Amino acid sequence: MRSRVSRVEITPVAFADPPLLNVVGVHQPYALRAIVEVHTDTGLVGLGETYGDEAILGRLRPVAAALPGHDPYDLNGLRRLVADVLGGDTGGAGASYGGMLDLSSAFAGVHSPFEVACLDLIGRETDRPVSDLLGGAVRDRVPFSGYLFYKWARHPGMAEDTWGEALDPDGIVAQAKRMVDGWGFGSLKLKGGVFDPDQECAAIEALAEAFPGLPLRLDPNGAWTPETSVRVAERLAGVVEYLEDPTPGIDGMAYVAARTDVPLATNMCVIAFEHLKPAVAADAVQIVLSDHHLWGGLRPSVQLAGICDTFGMGLSMHSNSHLGVSLAAMVHLAAATPNLTYACDTHYPWKSEDVIAPGVLGFDGGAVEVPTGPGLGVELDRDLLGTLHEQYLSCGVRRREDTVYMRSIEPGFEVNTARW
Amino acid sequence: MRSRVSRVEITPVAFADPPLLNVVGVHQPYALRAIVEVHTDTGLVGLGETYGDEAILGRLRPVAAALPGHDPYDLNGLRRLVADVLGGDTGGAGASYGGMLDLSSAFAGVHSPFEVACLDLIGRETDRPVSDLLGGAVRDRVPFSGYLFYKWARHPGMAEDTWGEALDPDGIVAQAKRMVDGWGFGSLKLKGGVFDPDQECAAIEALAEAFPGLPLRLDPNGAWTPETSVRVAERLAGVVEYLEDPTPGIDGMAYVAARTDVPLATNMCVIAFEHLKPAVAADAVQIVLSDHHLWGGLRPSVQLAGICDTFGMGLSMHSNSHLGVSLAAMVHLAAATPNLTYACDTHYPWKSEDVIAPGVLGFDGGAVEVPTGPGLGVELDRDLLGTLHEQYLSCGVRRREDTVYMRSIEPGFEVNTARW
Repeated sequence: MRSRVSRVEITPVAFADPPLLNVVGVHQPYALRAIVEVHTDTGLVGLGETYGDEAILGRLRPVAAALPGHDPYDLNGLRRLVADVLGGDTGGAGASYGGMLDLSSAFAGVHSPFEVACLDLIGRETDRPVSDLLGGAVRDRVPFSGYLFYKWARHPGMAEDTWGEALDPDGIVAQAKRMVDGWGFGSLKLKGGVFDPDQECAAIEALAEAFPGLPLRLDPNGAWTPETSVRVAERLAGVVEYLEDPTPGIDGMAYVAARTDVPLATNMCVIAFEHLKPAVAADAVQIVLSDHHLWGGLRPSVQLAGICDTFGMGLSMHSNSHLGVSLAAMVHLAAATPNLTYACDTHYPWKSEDVIAPGVLGFDGGAVEVPTGPGLGVELDRDLLGTLHEQYLSCGVRRREDTVYMRSIEPGFEVNTARW
Repeated sequence: MRSRVSRVEITPVAFADPPLLNVVGVHQPYALRAIVEVHTDTGLVGLGETYGDEAILGRLRPVAAALPGHDPYDLNGLRRLVADVLGGDTGGAGASYGGMLDLSSAFAGVHSPFEVACLDLIGRETDRPVSDLLGGAVRDRVPFSGYLFYKWARHPGMAEDTWGEALDPDGIVAQAKRMVDGWGFGSLKLKGGVFDPDQECAAIEALAEAFPGLPLRLDPNGAWTPETSVRVAERLAGVVEYLEDPTPGIDGMAYVAARTDVPLATNMCVIAFEHLKPAVAADAVQIVLSDHHLWGGLRPSVQLAGICDTFGMGLSMHSNSHLGVSLAAMVHLAAATPNLTYACDTHYPWKSEDVIAPGVLGFDGGAVEVPTGPGLGVELDRDLLGTLHEQYLSCGVRRREDTVYMRSIEPGFEVNTARW
């Protein structure tokens, strides 16, 4: 019997998030996600996870309503269905980028969790892990990078979190030590764009001294001018593995790339297939950060990987704040992508709550073992899901607004894009 | 139980081929193919088909010997296995291109039939057509183009074939009438590169007059200089759907492309992933002809399709002389490729013999219905396979050599590449 979708549930959830600083402001006390459950008439359930902003919830729900009767294998048909349901309603991403990203269409972000859920279903139906459906795992452990943030000790009016304050090189090195000791990360990334670039360079140099030989990355999310970016690249040449989005836009990145041998990575100027042709033509980036939420799912991400391979670009992986369903999807994708040679980003250590039953996904030596069970290999814990849904209902956050939240604390705050 | 490969059989076959003329000479009396059968320990058999030249047979056999124990889902592992087995033995294509194509590596051609057989196995195991494994069929019928050739009435010393002679516009129009009447083709392609371009233009113009509104293509396989190509493009603007490989090489094609609005297609200067970056940079071609034999299988062909979509190139499909296993694979691939908007090429009407059990693949209105049964949807007829294998053993042809064969008939023949 060839299974068909019988019903789909979308559950918005909220989980506590520390006050992590970035170019557009600071993380709110709660991060939002949407959990997608796709049921079949054969009694299977496939899982997906994506952003939980109200704008994307408003687009996920009509797709969910239109999905019953759909064949999980018909992924080309899923694309058509999502496009048909959205109709003209694709303007603006409406998703959880905190104002950092500018996407011309919401299509990919809406499509992604349903595609992942369909692949989870196919895997469960065939008793195969999702990595097998993407061509087979080329590694049984996926290395991740420890993701360091400048941060306050607490959200205003709330208790201090366990990480404490990190607003200078010493604070960042201390945070890194906890990351490396606790999770075993073999590379580190610092989210910059918060302070003057010289201060952030000093933090990177302190990390290099504290962790000799560990690959380091700095990502100011386009906080610098092209000229400043060249100057930082000169200072950090030989110290960083790559610089991520030093300056905004393909033209700016191309200007910098032409003036440094430090590889430039991006998750800002190449975030959709339409950006690849101009980026390649301008030789603007050396490494593209994939993200199956942004690029429309796992198969489109495999497609992106093939394009990077074909056009001589490296491949890494981006992360937004996420839960275990997304981590599982990221791990399967990374496992099945031969040219993903950089450790992936993840916000996972920053959260203390989840919706999946524990035990499958763990960090050991900075890597996550690829689940070998059917599908994504993770199951929802309905109590945990219920708890985080209740938290969504009560927390009051309905969209990611790093800048709005920052201004509620520092009224004069201006977004740091290309500021320095 | 997760199936594993238990044994693999490679059977070379030969089928009668008419004396079809082209830029490098003429088709020999027999065309060679290799039929690949991949058995699993669960009792399934997956099929593949590729070129049957002795050089490729010599590379298929050690791969076949190394395959037992392999997981059919592990397609990334299959790539590694083929690369490991071939080792350094990838120089030259050693495949059935008749001297027309220059490939730097034999890898893709050796990999392809095993990849197709693995997908056939996965489809049989999951009760799903191969098109479902490639993302789902977006069309239930795949349109093909009628493939016209200049030809002699007979191979020297053999009986006249049923098609008779076609060496001028009238002969081509008569051949086209039989193609359109018998198979219902809704577009036509003329293999050129045989006569002076003015004669071939006259044949295209005669076709346009005889079949008003039918899309027409002319493929001289690089027989013309760039200047001649521009002149032909001017003459045939508004008459041809596209010109295929008017002149050799990316630079030559780019020269022509910059001087005409007639779309240029290629199956000669972009035949491997390494050619895509320079071709895109030079804006050399508007349409790439995919071919799962040349590009390493069905999933790499899906990858190629995504690249064409991303970089603004059209997609069509190339054909070499082939049998039913390849036709089935071509149909599933075409069905699951949304941006394959041109009718595919096929040599299928030119052969009167096959190895598959009849009844599944038929031309109706110039299109082949996509099989909906498990896998490729075709089965070998062991009597037919035996007959064509016996024919292989007795026919004496061991490699495709259009030029050698032509010179045995016309000793002074010179290859026509960039001749006019």
